[in-house]
Amino acid sequence: MNWNEVYQIAKEWTYEAGEILRRATKESVNVEYKTSAADIVTNKDKEIEQFFIEQIKTSFPTHFFLGEEGLAANQDFNPENEIVWIVDPIDGTTNFVHQKRNFAISIGIYEKGAPRIGIVYDPIADEMFHAVAGQGAYLNEQPLSKLEAKALEEANISICQYWLVPNDRVDHTIFTEMIQKARGTRYLGSAALEIVYVACGRLETYFDFRLSPWDIAGGMVILQEVGGVMKTLENQPFSVFSPQITVFSNNDVLKEIFETIHREKNK
Amino acid sequence: MNWNEVYQIAKEWTYEAGEILRRATKESVNVEYKTSAADIVTNKDKEIEQFFIEQIKTSFPTHFFLGEEGLAANQDFNPENEIVWIVDPIDGTTNFVHQKRNFAISIGIYEKGAPRIGIVYDPIADEMFHAVAGQGAYLNEQPLSKLEAKALEEANISICQYWLVPNDRVDHTIFTEMIQKARGTRYLGSAALEIVYVACGRLETYFDFRLSPWDIAGGMVILQEVGGVMKTLENQPFSVFSPQITVFSNNDVLKEIFETIHREKNK
Repeated sequence: MNWNEVYQIAKEWTYEAGEILRRATKESVNVEYKTSAADIVTNKDKEIEQFFIEQIKTSFPTHFFLGEEGLAANQDFNPENEIVWIVDPIDGTTNFVHQKRNFAISIGIYEKGAPRIGIVYDPIADEMFHAVAGQGAYLNEQPLSKLEAKALEEANISICQYWLVPNDRVDHTIFTEMIQKARGTRYLGSAALEIVYVACGRLETYFDFRLSPWDIAGGMVILQEVGGVMKTLENQPFSVFSPQITVFSNNDVLKEIFETIHREKNK
Repeated sequence: MNWNEVYQIAKEWTYEAGEILRRATKESVNVEYKTSAADIVTNKDKEIEQFFIEQIKTSFPTHFFLGEEGLAANQDFNPENEIVWIVDPIDGTTNFVHQKRNFAISIGIYEKGAPRIGIVYDPIADEMFHAVAGQGAYLNEQPLSKLEAKALEEANISICQYWLVPNDRVDHTIFTEMIQKARGTRYLGSAALEIVYVACGRLETYFDFRLSPWDIAGGMVILQEVGGVMKTLENQPFSVFSPQITVFSNNDVLKEIFETIHREKNK
């Protein structure tokens, strides 16, 4: 596989899809509820997913496709044995609908489970974060630097407020010291963007506890290229195909955060 | 006072200051700690504040000035008796330094305590939110609509994560039901932008519990023009000169939020 050729084509398709979404923010979109009023999908999520499915089928007929909307016909395969495009057509659908900004197209291409290519494109800011594994990461044409050592008191931490009140996934009290010590906290509402914001130093750490492969596949390739770390809350590695309780971070900040969590657990 | 003339001039100065900040995001800035590592100021905060002080002194010598950096010489006045420009040269200084985005210049002009003019300018997105009291609010050239009735389950709530863990200002447990019921939660890190995001429907509600007049003076004029509400947590009005425990909101969503807070308090 000529990965640089795939990379160029994937970026072109992403710009094309981004242009569709940029135009869509100027029209009204059809919103449907999925599982609840908090879980929405638009006609544009489906349109962009279908666009990628068609392009990939034509240009790379041996590649598989895994997407948030589940529109691909080839769901019966083991991603650990194949080349698979993992696509979120609109990561941050709520932002797309409510804010018309702070959403992204996310693409990760993995070969037998190994990361090859990552693309996260914010069409409103016209920022494309992209990487081929082993060749460094970029924001548009600019190479991203390796992450520098930092302390928690200089760090901005992104964590959804939902995980700081009683919930069914994680003990919300373990984050208190971290929140109190950090320089700042943020929450944007697009996992793909928050991961690449860690990669470019806009955030130091991003937590999430209800993720799917398409939310993170693109960002993981990019974050890995700048020396970022991706762990479970137990400090273990995880597979892009089974993320759940995960953190994406500057390494030094994460070490300090794990110490605060350890102290809270032992209170 | 010809308020429309003041309005035009204030917008021109704000665009000029915005251009300085836009250029500054491409240079390195000098960061100093104020009270702690979480409380930072840059040479640009001071430069922009000084720019407004000089302009106002020259063009409107009878007007007073109240700014975050406290550089004006005329601090000894009663703002309830004067025309006062309330200016935050960079609202969201941490974002300015770390993200080079999501910060704003905020200007509120008040006459004997009454709101006259509000301007909040995001120079990176090139979005100017602005209003003359009684004449409606605008985002760039586009009039902002009155806020529509909404339910909490369709709402995006902005509240800093710091207020959801034990802290010295507010009982953090009163927000649990609100967080669990909202469509989404966000936190951007610029009070001025979050207030105008409520005004344009990107957020429904913004809470903050450690605000100063310069954080909110511009946004309050704009939010008032679209029918937004500004209250203390006890559902009381507050003065721009003494904000503390405050919420800026879509009226219907706030009613529902107050019900959730009431239930949590009585648990």
